[in-house]
Amino acid sequence: MKTIYLVGAGPGRADLLTVRAAGLLARADAVLYDRLVSAEILALVRPGAELHDVGKVEGRQEEIQGRTLGLLEDCARRLQTVVRLKGGDPMVFGRGGEEWAWLVSRGWDVEMVPGVSAAFAVPALAGIPLTFRGVAGGFAVVTGHRTAGERQDWASYAAVDTLVVLMGVGRRAEIAAALMENGRAAETP
Amino acid sequence: MKTIYLVGAGPGRADLLTVRAAGLLARADAVLYDRLVSAEILALVRPGAELHDVGKVEGRQEEIQGRTLGLLEDCARRLQTVVRLKGGDPMVFGRGGEEWAWLVSRGWDVEMVPGVSAAFAVPALAGIPLTFRGVAGGFAVVTGHRTAGERQDWASYAAVDTLVVLMGVGRRAEIAAALMENGRAAETP
Repeated sequence: MKTIYLVGAGPGRADLLTVRAAGLLARADAVLYDRLVSAEILALVRPGAELHDVGKVEGRQEEIQGRTLGLLEDCARRLQTVVRLKGGDPMVFGRGGEEWAWLVSRGWDVEMVPGVSAAFAVPALAGIPLTFRGVAGGFAVVTGHRTAGERQDWASYAAVDTLVVLMGVGRRAEIAAALMENGRAAETP
Repeated sequence: MKTIYLVGAGPGRADLLTVRAAGLLARADAVLYDRLVSAEILALVRPGAELHDVGKVEGRQEEIQGRTLGLLEDCARRLQTVVRLKGGDPMVFGRGGEEWAWLVSRGWDVEMVPGVSAAFAVPALAGIPLTFRGVAGGFAVVTGHRTAGERQDWASYAAVDTLVVLMGVGRRAEIAAALMENGRAAETP
């Protein structure tokens, strides 16, 4: 069976792609990409390749997700090198695990290409180590953006050392309050 | 002041280096590397560059760490492109944050080059998503290997969704027991 490539685009800068990811984009026949993938990275895709924007639109996630998977299969039947490009790392948030499981269940071979997650890169580039001897012996990563009906279980994450909240800017006051209710010190930097 | 490059080597495969990291190795004048950096990656260093193995030896960590920082400054005074190469991501475990802070305090410019962490890549390549809608809304990463006198606070991590323990193989029974004592279900996959 043909291989479909599930590829992490990293945090946005083209030179923070992996060598493997850059090589696949340079020879791709089709790339299906998410909203968080930068123009700088899309510019590396082989000229002439099909470029499909499959970014989610609020409230239409399920419909778009179904259509994305159908399009991915359609491309893979017609073309040789088909890349599903996701922001950051493909297996962290963004339903990469679901896409992987679905493709495998349909009989496709999937090559997973890990990427640099923004959960690591953003703190690093801001000079904030996620761990530090004597200060932080571990860290956790959660999403601040949950789809309707889901609730983040802040109690389970309130006591970790460093906490990285992805996609939480819009709800930051609510998230801080939930963490403090669960015992996080108000002075936490 | 001259720039010193603090670079993540990723999980081990040469093609999982970032494009930026591969470019820096190809023009490096000196590379100081840790024990976890693979031969496949060291083969990408510019021929003629100084290669310094500064891997830690159990029980002599402090001595080696001090000598590493001295050597890094010595190289940076003599040479143009000096790379401090660390396994995975430079700001996650492995004292990258300490090296960064020390170099900055000594007046050096430091460019941080994030890398793909084994905490992401190993589960991804094994087909284990760290997050999955309806199953795992977040994850945490801790080290199973603590230096003398330090204790991991398992209570703070026992309730997170997915837990990644780096460098914990040798103590896995002890770690599992500590997690269960803190309420983690024995059936946790």
